[in-house]
Amino acid sequence: MPRNAKGVGKKLQVENLFWIGFIGSVVALVFAFVQRNKVMKFSEGTELMQKIASSIREGANAYLKRQYSTVIKIFAVVFVILLILSATHMLDNFFIPFAFLTGGIYSALAGFIGMKIATASNARTANAAHESLNRGLNVAFSSGSVMGFTVVGLGLLDVTVWFHILKYAAGYDAAQIAQTMVMFGMGASFMALFARVGGGIFTKAADVGADLVGKVEAGIPEDDPRNPATIADNVGDNVGDVAGMGADLYESYVGSILATFALGATAFFDEGMGWNAMLLPLAVAVVGVLCSLLGTFLVRTQENADQRSLLKTLRKGTYTAAVLAAVVAAPITYVLMGSWGAYVAILAGLIAGCAIGYFTEYFTSDTYKPTQTLADSTETGAATTIIGGLSLGMQSTAAPIVIIGIAIIVAFLAAGGSLHTASAAYEASFSKGLYGIGIAAVGMLSTLGITLATDAYGPVADNAGGIAEMSGLGEEVRTRTDALDSLGNTTAATGKGFAIGSAALTALALLVSYVDVVNAKTAGMAGAAIDLKLTNPAVLVGIFVGAMLTFVFASLTMSGVQRAAQSIVVEVRRQFREIAGIMEGTTDPDYASCVDLCTRGALHEMIAPSLLAIIVPVITGLILGPEAVVGLLGGVTVTGFAVAVFMSNAGGAWDNAKKYIESGKHGGKGSDCHKAAVIGDTVGDPFKDTSGPSLNILIKLCSTVSIVFSTLVINFNLTSFMG
Amino acid sequence: MPRNAKGVGKKLQVENLFWIGFIGSVVALVFAFVQRNKVMKFSEGTELMQKIASSIREGANAYLKRQYSTVIKIFAVVFVILLILSATHMLDNFFIPFAFLTGGIYSALAGFIGMKIATASNARTANAAHESLNRGLNVAFSSGSVMGFTVVGLGLLDVTVWFHILKYAAGYDAAQIAQTMVMFGMGASFMALFARVGGGIFTKAADVGADLVGKVEAGIPEDDPRNPATIADNVGDNVGDVAGMGADLYESYVGSILATFALGATAFFDEGMGWNAMLLPLAVAVVGVLCSLLGTFLVRTQENADQRSLLKTLRKGTYTAAVLAAVVAAPITYVLMGSWGAYVAILAGLIAGCAIGYFTEYFTSDTYKPTQTLADSTETGAATTIIGGLSLGMQSTAAPIVIIGIAIIVAFLAAGGSLHTASAAYEASFSKGLYGIGIAAVGMLSTLGITLATDAYGPVADNAGGIAEMSGLGEEVRTRTDALDSLGNTTAATGKGFAIGSAALTALALLVSYVDVVNAKTAGMAGAAIDLKLTNPAVLVGIFVGAMLTFVFASLTMSGVQRAAQSIVVEVRRQFREIAGIMEGTTDPDYASCVDLCTRGALHEMIAPSLLAIIVPVITGLILGPEAVVGLLGGVTVTGFAVAVFMSNAGGAWDNAKKYIESGKHGGKGSDCHKAAVIGDTVGDPFKDTSGPSLNILIKLCSTVSIVFSTLVINFNLTSFMG
Repeated sequence: MPRNAKGVGKKLQVENLFWIGFIGSVVALVFAFVQRNKVMKFSEGTELMQKIASSIREGANAYLKRQYSTVIKIFAVVFVILLILSATHMLDNFFIPFAFLTGGIYSALAGFIGMKIATASNARTANAAHESLNRGLNVAFSSGSVMGFTVVGLGLLDVTVWFHILKYAAGYDAAQIAQTMVMFGMGASFMALFARVGGGIFTKAADVGADLVGKVEAGIPEDDPRNPATIADNVGDNVGDVAGMGADLYESYVGSILATFALGATAFFDEGMGWNAMLLPLAVAVVGVLCSLLGTFLVRTQENADQRSLLKTLRKGTYTAAVLAAVVAAPITYVLMGSWGAYVAILAGLIAGCAIGYFTEYFTSDTYKPTQTLADSTETGAATTIIGGLSLGMQSTAAPIVIIGIAIIVAFLAAGGSLHTASAAYEASFSKGLYGIGIAAVGMLSTLGITLATDAYGPVADNAGGIAEMSGLGEEVRTRTDALDSLGNTTAATGKGFAIGSAALTALALLVSYVDVVNAKTAGMAGAAIDLKLTNPAVLVGIFVGAMLTFVFASLTMSGVQRAAQSIVVEVRRQFREIAGIMEGTTDPDYASCVDLCTRGALHEMIAPSLLAIIVPVITGLILGPEAVVGLLGGVTVTGFAVAVFMSNAGGAWDNAKKYIESGKHGGKGSDCHKAAVIGDTVGDPFKDTSGPSLNILIKLCSTVSIVFSTLVINFNLTSFMG
Repeated sequence: MPRNAKGVGKKLQVENLFWIGFIGSVVALVFAFVQRNKVMKFSEGTELMQKIASSIREGANAYLKRQYSTVIKIFAVVFVILLILSATHMLDNFFIPFAFLTGGIYSALAGFIGMKIATASNARTANAAHESLNRGLNVAFSSGSVMGFTVVGLGLLDVTVWFHILKYAAGYDAAQIAQTMVMFGMGASFMALFARVGGGIFTKAADVGADLVGKVEAGIPEDDPRNPATIADNVGDNVGDVAGMGADLYESYVGSILATFALGATAFFDEGMGWNAMLLPLAVAVVGVLCSLLGTFLVRTQENADQRSLLKTLRKGTYTAAVLAAVVAAPITYVLMGSWGAYVAILAGLIAGCAIGYFTEYFTSDTYKPTQTLADSTETGAATTIIGGLSLGMQSTAAPIVIIGIAIIVAFLAAGGSLHTASAAYEASFSKGLYGIGIAAVGMLSTLGITLATDAYGPVADNAGGIAEMSGLGEEVRTRTDALDSLGNTTAATGKGFAIGSAALTALALLVSYVDVVNAKTAGMAGAAIDLKLTNPAVLVGIFVGAMLTFVFASLTMSGVQRAAQSIVVEVRRQFREIAGIMEGTTDPDYASCVDLCTRGALHEMIAPSLLAIIVPVITGLILGPEAVVGLLGGVTVTGFAVAVFMSNAGGAWDNAKKYIESGKHGGKGSDCHKAAVIGDTVGDPFKDTSGPSLNILIKLCSTVSIVFSTLVINFNLTSFMG
């Protein structure tokens, strides 16, 4: 291993400081446990509430159990493939198959724990909201913070444990550790994709099914206990919005750290600063955990607080955490890197995340013009509502793309890169500049503990509203849970900004890592340089394939929801027809059969899109070589980002336009405008909760898959056999 | 000019053979004139029919007059800017501003003549269909062929005239001619974009407006003379589908020839084969004209023919022309180039065009499963209809992308390129391979004369149906015009395949030309090499911006239709309310005011999206340099292609799903399924007739704009001032 001699850090013996990851991890997990205990002390309320909550819990548990048992089989197949590749030297080492497993397990665990606490908190939130809005927020937010801190705690644990195994048990140097660990993200991404797609299909199939028959055909309100799909709908919030989101952000968090490890080890290898560049993302993450924890203590308010002061306190918590993290990261970055460049990149990431969050809110909140204009377009019917929403979503891609573009350029230049191709600095500083893009992503996600808490409490509030409705807690409680829910939508917009922005930056960092890996592996071969210029037809075709993958993936996830929802529609109609006494409220509908149908539908429909993400990059590489893979990663990242923003924002705007009309505008509930808005919202459901967020994972999974299978592609692609 | 000595061709004195372009041009234009005279001999029918036809004619003329007078102002501004650039040596020579004008004028002329003959043929088609289906086809197809041959005739004229001016009046060599002429496409593209966007907004605003109030609210049938927007609707078919399409395909045709000129001159410069490589696309085009002409003579059938034999005869015409062109092109290509490589590329283009056409038909025709499944999804309402159509459209991007990908790789390899980056052949043969991509596009469009004829006759049949309805010609005539219309939809699918496939290939050829231009211009500068590798942040950000441009452009064109349509809705409602006797048929509605509103709306809404295509590439270049422009062109080509396919096919499928239901399936007209299908069709209108086809032009306009402004960007971009 020629890199050994130089790869050892010099300053501060930084290579021995990676145990700080354990500190961050333990603090986060202990805090999550404390918060969990706090939540569990609250009462679940009346017997009926307990019964409903336990039905939801059972449904969610049953779904996750079956989801995991399906996923395990797929993981087993991939694991065996990886073992075979490892045995035939098509993988760098035999750790990768096992790291694939731990990534999957931790990601699943993050989702599972989040779901557990969410299903334990929904009735407690409803009951607490019965007493006051503030108590309701307290329970829901604590529940969200269990999830937030579990995700970051598990993420840091996974990263730190493997780092120490590779360094001390295997004796790897910085470059080897980084290049091995960047492949570890694949397990987490793969699991996250299943969780997001499966959960997303479940939740929207139940939602669409419940709405189409219950609300539209039978004319009963949302969450009415007479609707056979209502429990499935509430289960869906937990398995999709909570478990799916947990797995998703676990993957973003770990992915951004690992990609930055790899970029840092390459960029600073020659200066012997590899360990420093690797310690920085870990240190920033740990600082983020501690600052997030402090931030949560600021989320408290008077007992008689109104919605506005609740929003203020939530924002105070997240912004204080972010500012604090930015302040503390400054000296650490300077000491580790010897300059301010990386720090500016971190700031660029943080600011870009906030800015994207702002524009997400601008385009989807009914307090701004776009969503109000969308509500106006319901006046001329469903068709103009759809055109309006699609147009709004497409238009809303502009701001995030400009922001990400600026963040990329600023991070690259600040970290030492040059854009003046003719200058001597260009090649010399190129990889340092790219390190800036990675560390910007880490900066964006550093306070994930608290941003995720504000994001994850939304579905809990949503569920609490359902339980309040089903158990007849009265209008006032429902108003409070609705207030919590709508508050959640606002804060979730910021969270989404961070999630989507970090996904793009992490995917780009992984793309660059892929190029580094390929360059390193082909360096020894006879003249096997790769040519990544955009006019290379392999690169061009790769970009086309990446765009295709995005659209086909979005199509499959949408049509998956459609097919699953149609089976629910049929079942709900059957129950209304065949089970006497449902509409009179004298007989309980068969909730379990709807949960079961959603489960089967989701599991069935999640397979194809998820496998695409593995198969397409590998096949493309085997036919057209690593250049086409780089093109594919570029194409899927850019198109995936744009389509994710388009779909998420269109869906969000339709949802809020409907709520805006329900608040009494344009004739209010039951008007023709409302009917048009409901159609928009139904189209938006798979947009914003299935296809959109899944695309964030797709773009990263493609990159890690490509890295893992890189040796195979380099050695066995068709172009390498050509003259 | 150091290139002079070598640039002169050796074999066959090919440099003196470019007059063949005049032959092709004259033959095409004379044939178009003959066909026109043939059409004019038919009678326009009853007095009422003549009156209606003349209203449509007047409306279409009035619109085009105002559109051209608006566009002239914008052209004047750009012309002055180009003159200033030319005077300050920011343009290669002073021909470019004038070529910009001729490109615009010829493109406008192609659209204008097409529109003239279409508005002269609609009543004649209706009247001929009164006698027999075959006579109706005869008039409509002859009218379509006037447009088809006018487009190719004018295109060849423009190219050949300028070639001879540059060669003989200016004394340019092959490379200089090619590099100058590749900029000439900008005028044609710019005009085409205005025609497509303006016409597209006009036609869909009228269509949506007429449907929303007339069909849905007032419950009167399509094309009912009581509907105040019905004349505007029929005018729209002419200014959007005919004039817009003419300008669009004029631009594709000329663009593919000019891009191939540029690629050929660069690739074969060293071997002194530049003239040969430039003559080839012209020769292929001329061959295509002659074969198309022969093909039109095959389009005839017995007097009592049914719809199926009509389709057969139309297909016989187009396929015979294509096969004939392929056969004749073989010896010409071999003689000119001395090998079969370019010929295989031409075949790849032709086959890819047919294959994309097949899949377009598969996804949008109700004889195949996708559209039937879409019709099924109307059973659960409008929301599932929309989700189904969007999902279908996204899925349908897969086949065209795979086909284009294969065509690119085959054309590149066949023309001599290598994908094995490490081989010695790679760099040496790179530009020859890229020439293959250009010549494939020329091959795809060579028989445009006849494919466009089968495409352009559809709107004439559509209009004929309208006139038959309005003048009360009876059910039987309407059935025949509907048959002609539906036949038109089927053949148009093939035409669309060629249009969209050639747009992608031409855009890529132009992208490569841009890189050649920049390389040539920076070659003399001190170390100013450009770095086009995908990991260059400027390239990456450029790709992001290209994707953004696609989505924002699609959003603006869609919302433009929406706003214009809403003004029509208000006006039609006003007329129903204020003018007594409309519904009883005793008073004529005020048709002119709707035409006027559509005109104003279209002209107002077309400006912003069209200017974007010029402004964004230039601004991006000035900030981030030519690398970012290349990224942008790659991003907009790939994303634009995918979104164009998505929108066109989703729109086509909704349209045909509606017609399928109207044929009696799922409850037929007036059923709930039909209502859902109408909503889908209304959403699909701007998809398939405004945004989708405009994107084809956008991707090429961005490239030519970038080439024209390349000197400015190279000299004054921000990165060149960096250290």
